[in-house]
Amino acid sequence: RTLRIGLIPGDGIGREVIPAGRRILEALPSSLGLNFSFVDLDAGFDCFKNTGVALPDKTLDTLRKECDGALFGAVSSPTTPTKGYSSPIVALRKRLDLYANVRPVKSVKPTAAYPDPIDLVIVRENTQDVYVKEERTYELEDGTIVAEAIKRIDSKASSRIARMAGEIALKRRAIRETSGDNIGKQTMVTISHKSNVMSQTDGLFRSCARAALEEKRFVDGGIKIDEQIIDSMFYKLGRNPSPYDVIVAPNLYGDLLSDDAAALVGSLGLIPSANVGDGFAIGEPCHGSAPDIEGRGIANPIATLRSVALMLQFLDQEDAALAIEKAVDSQLLEGRFSTPDMGGNATTNEVVEDVLKRL
Amino acid sequence: RTLRIGLIPGDGIGREVIPAGRRILEALPSSLGLNFSFVDLDAGFDCFKNTGVALPDKTLDTLRKECDGALFGAVSSPTTPTKGYSSPIVALRKRLDLYANVRPVKSVKPTAAYPDPIDLVIVRENTQDVYVKEERTYELEDGTIVAEAIKRIDSKASSRIARMAGEIALKRRAIRETSGDNIGKQTMVTISHKSNVMSQTDGLFRSCARAALEEKRFVDGGIKIDEQIIDSMFYKLGRNPSPYDVIVAPNLYGDLLSDDAAALVGSLGLIPSANVGDGFAIGEPCHGSAPDIEGRGIANPIATLRSVALMLQFLDQEDAALAIEKAVDSQLLEGRFSTPDMGGNATTNEVVEDVLKRL
Ligand SMILES: CC(C)[C@H](C(=O)O)[C@@H](O)C(=O)O
Ligand SMILES: CC(C)[C@H](C(=O)O)[C@@H](O)C(=O)O
Repeated sequence: RTLRIGLIPGDGIGREVIPAGRRILEALPSSLGLNFSFVDLDAGFDCFKNTGVALPDKTLDTLRKECDGALFGAVSSPTTPTKGYSSPIVALRKRLDLYANVRPVKSVKPTAAYPDPIDLVIVRENTQDVYVKEERTYELEDGTIVAEAIKRIDSKASSRIARMAGEIALKRRAIRETSGDNIGKQTMVTISHKSNVMSQTDGLFRSCARAALEEKRFVDGGIKIDEQIIDSMFYKLGRNPSPYDVIVAPNLYGDLLSDDAAALVGSLGLIPSANVGDGFAIGEPCHGSAPDIEGRGIANPIATLRSVALMLQFLDQEDAALAIEKAVDSQLLEGRFSTPDMGGNATTNEVVEDVLKRL
Repeated sequence: RTLRIGLIPGDGIGREVIPAGRRILEALPSSLGLNFSFVDLDAGFDCFKNTGVALPDKTLDTLRKECDGALFGAVSSPTTPTKGYSSPIVALRKRLDLYANVRPVKSVKPTAAYPDPIDLVIVRENTQDVYVKEERTYELEDGTIVAEAIKRIDSKASSRIARMAGEIALKRRAIRETSGDNIGKQTMVTISHKSNVMSQTDGLFRSCARAALEEKRFVDGGIKIDEQIIDSMFYKLGRNPSPYDVIVAPNLYGDLLSDDAAALVGSLGLIPSANVGDGFAIGEPCHGSAPDIEGRGIANPIATLRSVALMLQFLDQEDAALAIEKAVDSQLLEGRFSTPDMGGNATTNEVVEDVLKRL
């Protein structure tokens, strides 16, 4: 089978890590029976500066009509307010209805701060909340400027993301059982929200998520339903992240939680994500465009390689996904080559080569 | 001078820590020339269950008419949606226009995870953002339930909170200079926001905060203006919190950041706050009502004792504030008695006695 993959490097180190993603796909063992074709696509702040559009129609069209999946690098955020610019990744998620943003966070080795293994996944709703970007500004009589944004949550999106979280919890348990790793871990979905303040919006998220997870399939699967108010979620994650399994969250909390959890395992350069819709997935490293290290060839490619695996998983290519994950884990465990974000001095290329050898 | 202090224990361990706050005020050395009188006031979820109101008018009236300051314990959040209930602390902040929530986070000793001292303060806007609690719910033709909340930010509140952050930065530097502690630290205010997604609301917060901090008084004071997008703020705080000095944030981010930062120094039981308006302050420990340990006499009183000091500071009683802070710091540094949240087995009372001895 041939899968056609859109490559959208975006800005900054996006251009250095997306090629690594392509390389690992090309290097997959032929025994898997998979072939890949690629199409380069434009988007990002540089694209905006050059063309006046951050997400060209051509990119969207090609993804829709030709592609089975895609890899997205990173986008720079303007450092000063820039009229007409709007984040292309946020637009992509909405326009392609990639309703779930799946972000696994896993520790490689125990550390002094966290002696127990961290192995959790954040399942972030990807289309609603304050990300609907409906804002308005007005002026009061006394000259005060007021700006308002809508935070929108609906029952459909909340139920669907919770169901996705439930499916992921079941799958993770099955993998633990097959691999024998971390076998005692409680299969659990933690619903995070702030319904003590936003009783209607976060209250709706909470009740829909709960109802979805109370479906027979999940109850029979032994999923424990847990709940945390989002402020206390940050506290508990920082104190002891190891009991957490799957965390489901509205869009904004999911954004913040994933950066937070990344710090617990050492580097954002390790954290992958997939933007998932029905039958389509875009792999995307969680890190940004990192202007401070751009062009130096030292960006950590691990997040992208893992994002490739995640994308494949959601395109139902489990074996290929597993092959990449294993190669990455073994590379990290040996720890011979690591990029500066992890305290090493290897280049992007050295890390990629080292992973490819293990495929 | 006699200060009249409202005591609002609220729910759960609020009832165990607020008496400790009263005790330390009563134990202040008479050389400070301060006297205190107290009035017990009701509020909280239990109050709601007993009377149908979470924040009785009498409490508000008494605070307004009789009190110079107050101490607030904690409130329980209902575990199931509860009609008519609304958080009394959120209401208090708005009704008394306590526009700043000041939350200092300070490490006692270096740890393996954070060898460098942590000494920062979160200055949280306390009246706006999604905390305006304007929500509505409607149903679509297809049966989908939609809930919306307003996130409101205005220029007045944003400028005023940034100015407060600037004043606090100047004061902190002056204290560092007098005490000789941590003298090399860069005086800095970090503005956190998500204007890359919410260009109008968070954009307004960002530009007003920046403009306020560019005022001559702060520039001459050598305050460095820093900025972090809120997701990356969580990441950077987790990786290395020690460079941060003052962090100014809209209401919700401030709520999440303070729990997050509490985990960095070990326990929420250490983190105080003050809700500050013009000429009035309510001290409030950052922790919740902790139903799991309620009634066992083991709640950590440190957050409350420090909140008393903070309250006094904003009531311009610097000497009294300093006396309490010193007694608390010395108690923590010796570390002989500590409550279970910090890994010890002392009672609330033992810790309080140990602090009082050092006054
Ligand atoms: C770049 C930004 C718009 C984006 C987001 O907020 O979703 C990023 O932080 C992420 O997490 O993918
Ligand atoms: C109890 C809750 C309403 C409150 C808040 O969200 O402000 C609390 O978390 C706090 O930080 O004081």
